[in-house]
Amino acid sequence: MDTISCVALDWGTSRLRLWVIDSAGNIVAQRQTDEGLEGARALGFAATLENHLAALGVGPDVPVIICGMAGSRQGWVEAPYVDTPAPLSEIILHAIKVSGISRDVRILPGVAQRSAIDPDVMRGEETQLLGLITDASRQLVCMPGTHSKWVEVSQNTVQHFTTFITGELFALFAGHSLLRHSVGDVRTFPHDTPAFADACADMIAHPQALSQRLFSVRAASLLHGFSQQDCAAKLSGLLIGAEIGGAKLSYGTASNVTLVGVGGLGKLYEKALQMAGFSYTVTDGEALVRAGLIAAAQQFWPSRF
Amino acid sequence: MDTISCVALDWGTSRLRLWVIDSAGNIVAQRQTDEGLEGARALGFAATLENHLAALGVGPDVPVIICGMAGSRQGWVEAPYVDTPAPLSEIILHAIKVSGISRDVRILPGVAQRSAIDPDVMRGEETQLLGLITDASRQLVCMPGTHSKWVEVSQNTVQHFTTFITGELFALFAGHSLLRHSVGDVRTFPHDTPAFADACADMIAHPQALSQRLFSVRAASLLHGFSQQDCAAKLSGLLIGAEIGGAKLSYGTASNVTLVGVGGLGKLYEKALQMAGFSYTVTDGEALVRAGLIAAAQQFWPSRF
Repeated sequence: MDTISCVALDWGTSRLRLWVIDSAGNIVAQRQTDEGLEGARALGFAATLENHLAALGVGPDVPVIICGMAGSRQGWVEAPYVDTPAPLSEIILHAIKVSGISRDVRILPGVAQRSAIDPDVMRGEETQLLGLITDASRQLVCMPGTHSKWVEVSQNTVQHFTTFITGELFALFAGHSLLRHSVGDVRTFPHDTPAFADACADMIAHPQALSQRLFSVRAASLLHGFSQQDCAAKLSGLLIGAEIGGAKLSYGTASNVTLVGVGGLGKLYEKALQMAGFSYTVTDGEALVRAGLIAAAQQFWPSRF
Repeated sequence: MDTISCVALDWGTSRLRLWVIDSAGNIVAQRQTDEGLEGARALGFAATLENHLAALGVGPDVPVIICGMAGSRQGWVEAPYVDTPAPLSEIILHAIKVSGISRDVRILPGVAQRSAIDPDVMRGEETQLLGLITDASRQLVCMPGTHSKWVEVSQNTVQHFTTFITGELFALFAGHSLLRHSVGDVRTFPHDTPAFADACADMIAHPQALSQRLFSVRAASLLHGFSQQDCAAKLSGLLIGAEIGGAKLSYGTASNVTLVGVGGLGKLYEKALQMAGFSYTVTDGEALVRAGLIAAAQQFWPSRF
């Protein structure tokens, strides 16, 4: 392992993903655990990290680059936001070096949009954007997830972005609302059904009707004999449709969308983008965040690559 | 207590409200408890009811009229829905007489809208509409709550209605979402503040932006130093504004709205209706449901009044 250049971490609220990278930028080893912000707090961030590095045989001289919620106020060390318009190069420059430890560990900052009307923040997604190498003068990037982001990037600068809490709404409704009785266990349902498509088309056409239509999931269960799987697919279709419909109102469909795909959820977003009339290109989210972390590492420690 | 005509109950998901009514329609005694559907299940519905009647000295010959979720499939005895267009007189005719007990107990049905696009149900609100004595040929009724209803009534018939899950969304976000850290304890915050009004105006103008703007509560806390009380007021303003803005898109503001007021929440709806340009008349929700129950009792047992 003497060709290791750095260790790269995407350290989020609920997950830790770690890659050991060699001097050519390839993955030598990797780990994924549920030691997110909550999980890491018991042992402490430094000890959690060092335990993994020791287990992987990574020596004390290997530097570490981190992005995600580990850099938030509730995280390890706060890496204050870079404000929009945020040049991607500025994001790397504003990384924080963790003090009080011998290893060289740096945490990348998030991006803040300090607007009175639509204040917004991101942490982690900016690193995916760093990994998005492109020739396009302007890009519209859709990043699905618990807190989906739609980001406008031009001149290698994050100009404006919007968060849709689509994934969190799904979890709230499926887990805690009156609808949970209609929806049942959502871990295994097939999304890609007419119940999904109908709900999605309805919301793309009427994105203002979200609160009304959410109750119709329960009504469909009571009146139309919808199964729990139908209801889960309908709920998913309503929420993703509301996001895509809202984005269509904001951006129009003239721009090609870069969709940061994440497994089965990415397929649903593809379907919704098609229904709304967007053209799109799919790119892999995990590869992006790793590419962004490596790009930052190459700037900090050029002699190691 | 020999002039008692009947006992009237609004028996909902979380609350039981009971009134002992005399032959002139006045309240002789009343009780409110948290023996809703969940609370009553332990002892059983019949025993829960009889315990209250015994404690109040109500004899075995006094009949009982009930509305609300006690008539749902998860309740005491199911009172199947009357379908829209639902004449208010039909609602009384379709009451269910509870069998297997000696006392005369009747449960009023709910109303179902068996539409493919916007299936919807109500239970309890139809009894408030029964209590709404009016000369108007057409009425638009706004009934705020966990599941707010907007109902179009004409020719004494429920023609169409829409549920907005405004109250449930507030409880979900304040209690279970990432926003709970921004919002804090929501039992005591003052709603009627600029944070409420600004958010409300924003959503009335952009009802399609609900999912986006919900995240901005957290962003406002992180970036603009919003206090927990400001965040709670902003969350409330966003959700009520989305409901009023959605209703404005559906109905326009030409019709006077009958607002079924419920304390402090009613004041917030008044403010939002004003901001959206609606004219409105406020009426008391508890008096309405009691009037509806008594109207039904007078038809079932005319000799007791």
